[in-house]
Amino acid sequence: MIQVGIFGASGYTGFELVNLLRRHPEVDIRFVTSKSQAGLSLDHLYPAGPALPLIAPENAPLSEVDLVFLCLPHAKAAPTAVAALEAGARVIDLSADFRLKSAAEYTRWYGVQHPAPNLLPEAVYGLTEFVRDQLPGARLVANPGCYPTSILLALQPALEVGAAAGAIIADAKSGVSGAGRQPKQNTHFVEVAGNFSPYNIGRAHRHLPEMEQAMALWSKPAPTLIFSPHLLPVPRGIEATIYMPLRKGWSEPTLRNLYEEIYAGEPFIRVLPAGELATLAHVLHSNCCVIGLSVAADTLILTSAIDNLVKGAAGQAVQNMNLMFGIDEKAGLI
Amino acid sequence: MIQVGIFGASGYTGFELVNLLRRHPEVDIRFVTSKSQAGLSLDHLYPAGPALPLIAPENAPLSEVDLVFLCLPHAKAAPTAVAALEAGARVIDLSADFRLKSAAEYTRWYGVQHPAPNLLPEAVYGLTEFVRDQLPGARLVANPGCYPTSILLALQPALEVGAAAGAIIADAKSGVSGAGRQPKQNTHFVEVAGNFSPYNIGRAHRHLPEMEQAMALWSKPAPTLIFSPHLLPVPRGIEATIYMPLRKGWSEPTLRNLYEEIYAGEPFIRVLPAGELATLAHVLHSNCCVIGLSVAADTLILTSAIDNLVKGAAGQAVQNMNLMFGIDEKAGLI
Amino acid sequence: MIQVGIFGASGYTGFELVNLLRRHPEVDIRFVTSKSQAGLSLDHLYPAGPALPLIAPENAPLSEVDLVFLCLPHAKAAPTAVAALEAGARVIDLSADFRLKSAAEYTRWYGVQHPAPNLLPEAVYGLTEFVRDQLPGARLVANPGCYPTSILLALQPALEVGAAAGAIIADAKSGVSGAGRQPKQNTHFVEVAGNFSPYNIGRAHRHLPEMEQAMALWSKPAPTLIFSPHLLPVPRGIEATIYMPLRKGWSEPTLRNLYEEIYAGEPFIRVLPAGELATLAHVLHSNCCVIGLSVAADTLILTSAIDNLVKGAAGQAVQNMNLMFGIDEKAGLI
Amino acid sequence: MIQVGIFGASGYTGFELVNLLRRHPEVDIRFVTSKSQAGLSLDHLYPAGPALPLIAPENAPLSEVDLVFLCLPHAKAAPTAVAALEAGARVIDLSADFRLKSAAEYTRWYGVQHPAPNLLPEAVYGLTEFVRDQLPGARLVANPGCYPTSILLALQPALEVGAAAGAIIADAKSGVSGAGRQPKQNTHFVEVAGNFSPYNIGRAHRHLPEMEQAMALWSKPAPTLIFSPHLLPVPRGIEATIYMPLRKGWSEPTLRNLYEEIYAGEPFIRVLPAGELATLAHVLHSNCCVIGLSVAADTLILTSAIDNLVKGAAGQAVQNMNLMFGIDEKAGLI
Repeated sequence: MIQVGIFGASGYTGFELVNLLRRHPEVDIRFVTSKSQAGLSLDHLYPAGPALPLIAPENAPLSEVDLVFLCLPHAKAAPTAVAALEAGARVIDLSADFRLKSAAEYTRWYGVQHPAPNLLPEAVYGLTEFVRDQLPGARLVANPGCYPTSILLALQPALEVGAAAGAIIADAKSGVSGAGRQPKQNTHFVEVAGNFSPYNIGRAHRHLPEMEQAMALWSKPAPTLIFSPHLLPVPRGIEATIYMPLRKGWSEPTLRNLYEEIYAGEPFIRVLPAGELATLAHVLHSNCCVIGLSVAADTLILTSAIDNLVKGAAGQAVQNMNLMFGIDEKAGLI
Repeated sequence: MIQVGIFGASGYTGFELVNLLRRHPEVDIRFVTSKSQAGLSLDHLYPAGPALPLIAPENAPLSEVDLVFLCLPHAKAAPTAVAALEAGARVIDLSADFRLKSAAEYTRWYGVQHPAPNLLPEAVYGLTEFVRDQLPGARLVANPGCYPTSILLALQPALEVGAAAGAIIADAKSGVSGAGRQPKQNTHFVEVAGNFSPYNIGRAHRHLPEMEQAMALWSKPAPTLIFSPHLLPVPRGIEATIYMPLRKGWSEPTLRNLYEEIYAGEPFIRVLPAGELATLAHVLHSNCCVIGLSVAADTLILTSAIDNLVKGAAGQAVQNMNLMFGIDEKAGLI
Repeated sequence: MIQVGIFGASGYTGFELVNLLRRHPEVDIRFVTSKSQAGLSLDHLYPAGPALPLIAPENAPLSEVDLVFLCLPHAKAAPTAVAALEAGARVIDLSADFRLKSAAEYTRWYGVQHPAPNLLPEAVYGLTEFVRDQLPGARLVANPGCYPTSILLALQPALEVGAAAGAIIADAKSGVSGAGRQPKQNTHFVEVAGNFSPYNIGRAHRHLPEMEQAMALWSKPAPTLIFSPHLLPVPRGIEATIYMPLRKGWSEPTLRNLYEEIYAGEPFIRVLPAGELATLAHVLHSNCCVIGLSVAADTLILTSAIDNLVKGAAGQAVQNMNLMFGIDEKAGLI
Repeated sequence: MIQVGIFGASGYTGFELVNLLRRHPEVDIRFVTSKSQAGLSLDHLYPAGPALPLIAPENAPLSEVDLVFLCLPHAKAAPTAVAALEAGARVIDLSADFRLKSAAEYTRWYGVQHPAPNLLPEAVYGLTEFVRDQLPGARLVANPGCYPTSILLALQPALEVGAAAGAIIADAKSGVSGAGRQPKQNTHFVEVAGNFSPYNIGRAHRHLPEMEQAMALWSKPAPTLIFSPHLLPVPRGIEATIYMPLRKGWSEPTLRNLYEEIYAGEPFIRVLPAGELATLAHVLHSNCCVIGLSVAADTLILTSAIDNLVKGAAGQAVQNMNLMFGIDEKAGLI
């Protein structure tokens, strides 16, 4: 059994992770922490949750676990990662702290010095389907952001073959759990219900550099990305509609063949048949990413959907854990 | 033109009031205040709102207005009422401060000393339909709570004639705006969407003594009230389903006649035809209270619906204002 | 492995059942039928569903299965039950056809002659927790209605001990899936979103006789039931707030002890601690029934919540199956 | 007073129109029709509606009105328009029948022969802000589609000056009332709540040719349009996020100046200040179109929001009526 600890279990991502791991056949949850709610039990925060006691993070018995998951705010996760690694545990970090390879970029987008820049080279960017060979040996995995997961999985095959003829536009829409559990004015039920709002559009959202960094690995030069997130009045789920101008020679059938080939055998990626589009209903509460393709006016239009808390966070983290520890990639996820 | 000021315009009730009053043909809004948002303009908080500047409450020019509306928390409203009355303005208080006639009861339910107990005898409990004669001369009106408005309007005719044979049960459901604009965990979109929750059931909610006080005026002895509020995943609206055991001799047709007679000519009360039940769709964004009646197992079952922000707060306040100032009761409300 | 067939798999209940059974460790789904959608595959109707082919009901290979589940409209289920029993299969009927013991009552409430009255005496009313001893030998189980499940589980202990002093009121609220998948005006998104509606209140809903029949087994004479259902703007879940006037001598602590004792060890019933109330969030997507108790004004107020599609339909059916076939009651349900 | 009749008053657009017109100070509603609901009264369909009797369309007294509004399905509206014009009434058609100038294009997109092609040259495409001079003399106005209104108002200034350097992408999201009141599987509450779905993306939606026809009037050659509609889980409202690659020399400040100049004095168009984005909350239940502008990666990103039932249908129809009859453009709309 893999012994794990979860830092930041009181948030939506942490709670989703607890729920996945307590049903996982090869995992023991040894501790769950919460800075603000230490001393309470998890079912006090979530009526359907298990009665796990939340401990203060400084009391976490790091030496007793094989792996820790960090569901902490950025800049808080990195120091915990350092401590965990020193104690001999491996780390899957669900914050943004180890996603960007450049400490300077990190500072530019997150406004603080990176707390542990020396670990950046070692961190594996855990978009599982494309780093399977790096996971077994990894000590530190940076779990991708929710928007990047939905968009990068849709873009990868077309980027890899150089099909893009210019700037790519990703118009993405996310449920409210993506904004965290902390109550704020813009997550108040009365403000969200019946509403729909773009935010941080263009090239302003922190997930942009993370996506462009990955795109640059697959396509040189990588096309510019325009990324426009929107807040959907639903609790969970992300849908991205993505527009890629195509080079000559790429048609819908050739692209469909490409995608079906690249994603053949993938347990959690489903390329939809012609004429079908990705919706949240395809993926809620599952670790799947569903991808639809169509072409219009020499533009590839991809529709991609994930559950932001599962494939976009906790589910992909479990998938990464499974590969890090050499067990069935699907364990605990189906 | 009636010159008015609004204290606490940044909350949902205050904003609803601003919207009603700025379309009112005989009202000038002279000032709107907000303690926390002073210096901003109202459209900064509400995208569809007017560009009215929010001033600090201490800067409100009380001597320039005929009337102030208080959309303040309890215990904050009463001192402002005192100041306004001293400056010569009349007051409609939408808080709970002047609803209970007994300062001791106020302390019991609200946990603080009453800030102005000497004003309690003078305050008119403004359930408009039943205090029309007291409003023209009133200096201080206590606008009823939202739940009490929906329940008392439904109960009054049957109570007045002594139809109740025992304890009354009011099972009430309210939209989230009733919980205020301040973000809290239990108003976070993710916690409310898809959920439904009872709270403060039985005899625990602060609106209970307010209702029993009014019931005692209509029926001696007044039947006990059991009142169970629930949080609905909708922005606005209250529906109450009310159960009153009947004395011998009361049937659905005789009760229907009674209600139709008592509410004949009322501009904002609609008694539904036999077989029809009150729903939120009957009343959203209107000042109407809709009441359905049926009888089963010797029990009168009333269904009552209002918009909590209109007839349950700002709309009834405007209706009261109209009568206080001798203008058409419907002005600004249709 | 238990070989099963599902009639009516295209509706919400049938689809929920398919999802539970395909993850069940001791079940093989041999066929799923749909009268209107035969020839299509289930994932054509539900984007997240499995690719099971829907066959016409008349083509179902009854002799190949140990058990059939009937998710059919009333009066359609009974003839299929007859055919299945004749072919040697056992039957769990999720329709209303075998819930009422009296064919005359069935006709009164459903407006048609009962298609198989001779089977009524044999049918076990499958409120699992109270018929465990009858299930192993049962050929035909009538799965309880969704509202009755939520209300009867909450009432049983207090009724059994004779705590009720008079008529009981059950004010219940259900999500829209309870109204079926067939599109109707009153399930149109625009009509439901932001709305809340009582319907068939008092003694008019078809679930009333089913509840009174069960209540009469536990308490003689059984108290009258007033039952008021309401439509909630959520996809799934039922919450019932239930009011029972108490005989002398019953207090909240004695009742809580009673409930905790009766439900001790129950895998799917959870009696909440003092001060906690049942909400949909306690039970969504689970087979649990959560029950809260409080007493006010000599009245026991029960709050009860279930997922109408799980404990209120498909989940309870699986629980019944598990007991009929002598396997772990929790198999496939946790 | 303008005497009007409304064909198709039982749908969402027709009902919205009735509500606007019965509060309009210069309009008498002489009749409202419904083919399927004739004989009922409008409040039978809409609990908050007025008690207007719905008559069969063939009984409409066309000679008694100055104007008819057609809220009918395509191909049903045109024959009624012919009859109304012959009877001497003017016509505002809210269907698609007179929007496209080419009968061949109409057949291509709507699959039927045009019922009255000889009227096409005369019909004014009523995007009010750009055809004010044509409305006073118009006999027949084709009210624009909901999506086209939101997108064309946002595009016009930039198109007019030739700022577009290539294909334009409009990623649009609409509330469910846009799909009509007829219950269908994809408008069932359970299918829509919590979901989000693209449909008819690329160049497949019937509103595409209508938009390209208008764009061609403003820009020669007009850029290609890629248009991707999505279904939002809200009752009403459209938000469109629009991407236009820019020619050299166009910056956000110059574009903002352009938009502010072109829309200066417009009563129903609001250009948002820098940094603010259009949301549904800006426009629900109002006749406003709100437009936000930003530039990223040489691309103009426009966000545009309207209420699909008001500015996208009934409200714009009233605005057109006001100009046709020479009264205040804002009458009945504020």
